[in-house]
Amino acid sequence: MTGPQPAEQWARIPAASADAGRVVTCDLTFGVDKPADIAFQLAVARSGRIHAERLDVATNGTPLARPVELSGPHGGRLHLLRAPRGILTVSYRAELVHPETEQPEGRAVPAGDLLTMEQLIFLRPSRYCPSDHVVGLAVAEFGALPPGRPRVEAVVDWIYHRVAYVVGSSAVHDSAEDTLLTGQGVCRDFAHLGITLCRALEVPARFAAVYAPGLDPMDFHAVFEAWIDGGWRTYDATRKVPRSSLVRIATGRDAADAAFADVLRGIATLHSLEVTATVTGNLPVDDPTADVHLY
Amino acid sequence: MTGPQPAEQWARIPAASADAGRVVTCDLTFGVDKPADIAFQLAVARSGRIHAERLDVATNGTPLARPVELSGPHGGRLHLLRAPRGILTVSYRAELVHPETEQPEGRAVPAGDLLTMEQLIFLRPSRYCPSDHVVGLAVAEFGALPPGRPRVEAVVDWIYHRVAYVVGSSAVHDSAEDTLLTGQGVCRDFAHLGITLCRALEVPARFAAVYAPGLDPMDFHAVFEAWIDGGWRTYDATRKVPRSSLVRIATGRDAADAAFADVLRGIATLHSLEVTATVTGNLPVDDPTADVHLY
Amino acid sequence: MTGPQPAEQWARIPAASADAGRVVTCDLTFGVDKPADIAFQLAVARSGRIHAERLDVATNGTPLARPVELSGPHGGRLHLLRAPRGILTVSYRAELVHPETEQPEGRAVPAGDLLTMEQLIFLRPSRYCPSDHVVGLAVAEFGALPPGRPRVEAVVDWIYHRVAYVVGSSAVHDSAEDTLLTGQGVCRDFAHLGITLCRALEVPARFAAVYAPGLDPMDFHAVFEAWIDGGWRTYDATRKVPRSSLVRIATGRDAADAAFADVLRGIATLHSLEVTATVTGNLPVDDPTADVHLY
Amino acid sequence: MTGPQPAEQWARIPAASADAGRVVTCDLTFGVDKPADIAFQLAVARSGRIHAERLDVATNGTPLARPVELSGPHGGRLHLLRAPRGILTVSYRAELVHPETEQPEGRAVPAGDLLTMEQLIFLRPSRYCPSDHVVGLAVAEFGALPPGRPRVEAVVDWIYHRVAYVVGSSAVHDSAEDTLLTGQGVCRDFAHLGITLCRALEVPARFAAVYAPGLDPMDFHAVFEAWIDGGWRTYDATRKVPRSSLVRIATGRDAADAAFADVLRGIATLHSLEVTATVTGNLPVDDPTADVHLY
Repeated sequence: MTGPQPAEQWARIPAASADAGRVVTCDLTFGVDKPADIAFQLAVARSGRIHAERLDVATNGTPLARPVELSGPHGGRLHLLRAPRGILTVSYRAELVHPETEQPEGRAVPAGDLLTMEQLIFLRPSRYCPSDHVVGLAVAEFGALPPGRPRVEAVVDWIYHRVAYVVGSSAVHDSAEDTLLTGQGVCRDFAHLGITLCRALEVPARFAAVYAPGLDPMDFHAVFEAWIDGGWRTYDATRKVPRSSLVRIATGRDAADAAFADVLRGIATLHSLEVTATVTGNLPVDDPTADVHLY
Repeated sequence: MTGPQPAEQWARIPAASADAGRVVTCDLTFGVDKPADIAFQLAVARSGRIHAERLDVATNGTPLARPVELSGPHGGRLHLLRAPRGILTVSYRAELVHPETEQPEGRAVPAGDLLTMEQLIFLRPSRYCPSDHVVGLAVAEFGALPPGRPRVEAVVDWIYHRVAYVVGSSAVHDSAEDTLLTGQGVCRDFAHLGITLCRALEVPARFAAVYAPGLDPMDFHAVFEAWIDGGWRTYDATRKVPRSSLVRIATGRDAADAAFADVLRGIATLHSLEVTATVTGNLPVDDPTADVHLY
Repeated sequence: MTGPQPAEQWARIPAASADAGRVVTCDLTFGVDKPADIAFQLAVARSGRIHAERLDVATNGTPLARPVELSGPHGGRLHLLRAPRGILTVSYRAELVHPETEQPEGRAVPAGDLLTMEQLIFLRPSRYCPSDHVVGLAVAEFGALPPGRPRVEAVVDWIYHRVAYVVGSSAVHDSAEDTLLTGQGVCRDFAHLGITLCRALEVPARFAAVYAPGLDPMDFHAVFEAWIDGGWRTYDATRKVPRSSLVRIATGRDAADAAFADVLRGIATLHSLEVTATVTGNLPVDDPTADVHLY
Repeated sequence: MTGPQPAEQWARIPAASADAGRVVTCDLTFGVDKPADIAFQLAVARSGRIHAERLDVATNGTPLARPVELSGPHGGRLHLLRAPRGILTVSYRAELVHPETEQPEGRAVPAGDLLTMEQLIFLRPSRYCPSDHVVGLAVAEFGALPPGRPRVEAVVDWIYHRVAYVVGSSAVHDSAEDTLLTGQGVCRDFAHLGITLCRALEVPARFAAVYAPGLDPMDFHAVFEAWIDGGWRTYDATRKVPRSSLVRIATGRDAADAAFADVLRGIATLHSLEVTATVTGNLPVDDPTADVHLY
C-alpha cells in the first residue's frame, strides 16, 4: 500500500505539448446518500508513459483530501476515497507521450518454458470467465489448430464474427457463458469470452480496462491479453478501435478486478459518467494480424 | 384420471409367440423408509403395439394393490403407487408386436402451416432445454442452413461429433447448456441438447423416454422427436441403437416429464434397477438419413 | 385446435352495462419487418365470465383476417396471426360480469388423495422454476412447518418481505434462482419464486398471467396458484393488487407458457403496449389470509 | 519465480523429534499418458513452522529432477513438474513444530480503516464465490446484525445448520450458489459458501487449502478466512476438525487457486491419493467462539 501521493504530483498539469500523443479524461458524479468508501480505478497505469496527470475530487464543490493510492498489478493504481454525504465529483485527466519504440516484455523467455506464477494465475477460471466449464466446447471448436497463437487468433475471429455488439444486451452478473450462448454483449463480454476460451485452451489470458481513442460511442473500454511466445499480446474481439492507441488502466482476472468505481461501504449512486480519449493526429488503422503490446 | 385397471389386464401374459417382435422388462427395488407415493413411468405407451404385458408390485414379497394408472400425453401411462415401509419391488414386462406398416402421423398436414397448440408447447423452453438462452449460438451455428429438416439433421450430426458419451459425466441438475459447454453427457443430455437447439431454431421438439434394444450397457434410453414436414421424426444423437426398434415409454418437454420413478411423498431410495429390451432376430441397422417414426 | 371463430363473436360489443364488473383492454403495436407468425395470449380465459369482447388486428390500418384461436389449458386461448410487413396493431377489449357466487373447483376431492396427472405436471421443475435445484434451501427454510397451506402461506410471506419489487431489475432469461439470490424482481419473478418453492415442498403450483385492476403502473400482471386442500388457490407475493379482481388470461408451468406475444417466425418488434384493467366501483381490499379462487 | 531449491533441503528429513507437533504426508499416483506439466500445491506454506520436509517425485520408480518451486501468496508454494510418460508418484512429508505463542498478524491495524489492496481483492467475486449475485439474499438474511464479526459468525452458524455434508454431492463445476440452493456439499463447498456470503456482506474473505489432523475420512481439507478487526480469522463451517491444528497449504480467492494438482499440459490421470495429518498427543477441542489464526 502506497501512502498518499505528494500534492505536487496532481496539482499542476503542463499545457499540452504539441507532441503529447494521447489525452484521456474521465468525469464522474455520484450522489452519496450515506458516507461511502469508494475504490476508483480510472487513473492510467504506471506502465503508460504519463507526461502529466491530475485527479480532483470534491463534494458539493469543496475539494476533498487526495484519495489514498494503492498499487495494483501491472502498474495499475487504485484510489480509495472516503466520501461524505453530498454530490461527489471525480475528475481525472492525463496526457501521455506516444511510445517511440515498442519493446514487448518477456521476449527473452523462450516459448514453451514452464510458466511463472503470474501466468499460472491467468490460466485459472474466474468469476466471469469460467474456463473450466467450457473446455469441451473450446477443444471441439479450436482443438484441431496448433496450440498458442493460431488458437488465440481463431478465438478472436470467431467471437468477432459470431457475437453481436449490442448495447444493453448483457447484465452485470452475466458471465462469458451467457455471451457465448446468447451471441450478444458489450466490450467486457467480448473480452470475457476471449479470456475464457483462451484459458480453456491452456493459454494464460487476462482482462484489461483501457481508455480507447476512437471508440464510438465513447466510454471505458475493455480488451484482453493472451500470453503467447513469451509475451502478453493485446486482443480486442470487438475490433472497434486500433489496439496500438489503447491506454491501460487496470489489469486482472476479469471485470471483477477492474471496476472503475466500487462502493465498498455506504451508499453512493452514479449519476453521470463522461469519458474522453483522444490522440494527436489521425488514429492509426488496426492490423488484426499484428502483435500489439499494451503498456 | 383413469381408474384402476381390471385385474385381468395384468394378471396373465401369454407365452411369447415366435413372432413377438420386441420384449422389454424392467425390475426395480426400493428401500421405503417412510410410506411413499411414487409415480412410475416405465410401462410402454399405448401407441405401441402391445401384445401382452404385466406389472407386479410387492412389499417384502407381498403383492400390493395395483397402482392407479393415469394417462399421459402421446399414449404415455403413469402408475401411481402408495408404498408402505419395506422393500418395494416393481417388475414390468411387455411383449410388442412388430409394426407391419409404418404410417407416420400427420402426413396430411401440409408443411409450413400454422402450428397446433401441441407443437407450440414444444417450441417453448423447458427446465433442461433453455432454448431461449441459446438462440444466438444456434443461429450462428445453423442459421445459414435452410429451415426445418436440414437444420435438425445438422444439429444431430453436430452433437454426435462434438459431445462425448461419458457415463457419470453429468449431474441430475444439469441442463443442455452444461452439455453444450462441457462437451460430455449421457443419453438424456444428448436428447436435451438436440431439443434445445431445435427449439432455438423454431422447430418444435420433444423428449421421449424409451426402451432401446441393442443398447450397451443396457438401461433406459432417451431420444428426441422433432416436428418436420407435418410429422414427428425420431432422432438419437448418440447413435448407439437403431431407432426403428425403440419402444416409447413417456413423452414430454424434457426429462422432467419422463422420470421412470418420482417419489412424491415419503422416503424411498432406489436400490437396484435392471432393464432389458430385446428384439426377435437381428437388430436392424440404423440409416441416419432415414425418417423414423416412434410409435 | 379450434377453427376460426365466427365473425359475429368479435364484431360487436354491447355498450358497457352499468353493472359490468370489470373491463380490460390491451393495445399493441408491432413493426413487422419480415412476414411473421405471432402467437398472442391476451384474451381473457373462457373460465372468466365474459359479457362481451372484441379483438381487432390490422396492418397499416387495414383489418386482417381474424387470427386462428387455439385452446390452451384452463380455458386459455391463444391467437395465431400471420402478419404481413408493416405496422401491426392489435386491440383487445373485454367486459366481464362480476362473479356472484364463488364456487372453487375441486372442493369435493378429499385432501391428501393421490394426485391427478395435471397436478403431477405442476410438481415438476420448469424453465424458470427449477424446483429440483432448490429443495435443500426450501426444506431448510420451510420444512419445519406443517405440509400444504402453512408452507405456502409462509413462502408467500417470505417472498413479500425479502424480495424487492424493482422495475427493470431482472432479465428475460432470469429464473427464480436469480430472484432468490439477488432479492429483486418484477411480478413474473415473484410468481416464479413462489412456484419454485412450492414445488420443492411438494405442493403443485402453476403460473397465471392476468389482468390486474388496481395495478400501478398498469401492465400485464402475473400471479401463481397452489394446489391446496383439493383446489387451486391464488397467491400474489407482490401484494400489489386485490386478488379477487384478477382476470385470468393464460395458465401454465411458468412464463414460458404465458407470453402475451411470441414471434414464431419472421421478424416483428414490439413498439408499444398499453394495458388497462378497471373495475366498477371501489377496488376490494385484499385479505392476505383469505382463499381466492381465480376463474 | 524462485529457482530450483537446493537439494539438501529435500534430501534428508531428521528423525521425528518427540515434540514435533504435527506431521503431514501426501502420496499421489498418476498415470501419465502424454508428457505432462503439472502444478502441485501440497507443500506446507512457508508461514507454517516447518521442522523438516521432503518431496519425492518419480516415474516408474526412477526419481525425477526436483520440481521448480514458485512462491504463491501467504507463503504458499507451488511445484511445477514436467512428467514423462509412465506412472508418476509424488510423495510429500513434513513435520511442523507446534507454534508456542499465537500472534495474529495485523493486530496493529485499527479496525474500520481503509482496506489494503490485498483485502480489496478478497472482497471481489470469484469463480466459485459469485458474491455479487447473492447480495440480496445475504443482506436479507444477515443485514440486521452488526457489521463484521457478528455477521461472519452468523454466516458460519447458518451454513453449519443448513448445509448437509454429503460426500459426492457436488460436482467440480459447482459454485457456492449450488451449495446454497441444494443444501449439500463437501468441505470446499462449505468454504465457498462462507466466503461468498462474507464478501456479499462486505467482509474480505479468502480460501485456504489445509492439512487437517482429525479429519475423518482423512483427505485434503478446506476452510476460509475472514478479515475481522484487522486480522484474518479462520472459519470452518463443517466443524469437523479443531481449527488450531490446521496446517496451511495454499491460499487464494477460491478453490481455483488451491488445486492440489493441476495438469497444465499433456494427459495425466490421478490414480490414487492418500493424505495423513497427525498431531502429537490429543487433538485439541475446538471452541467455535474462539478466534483462530492460521499460520
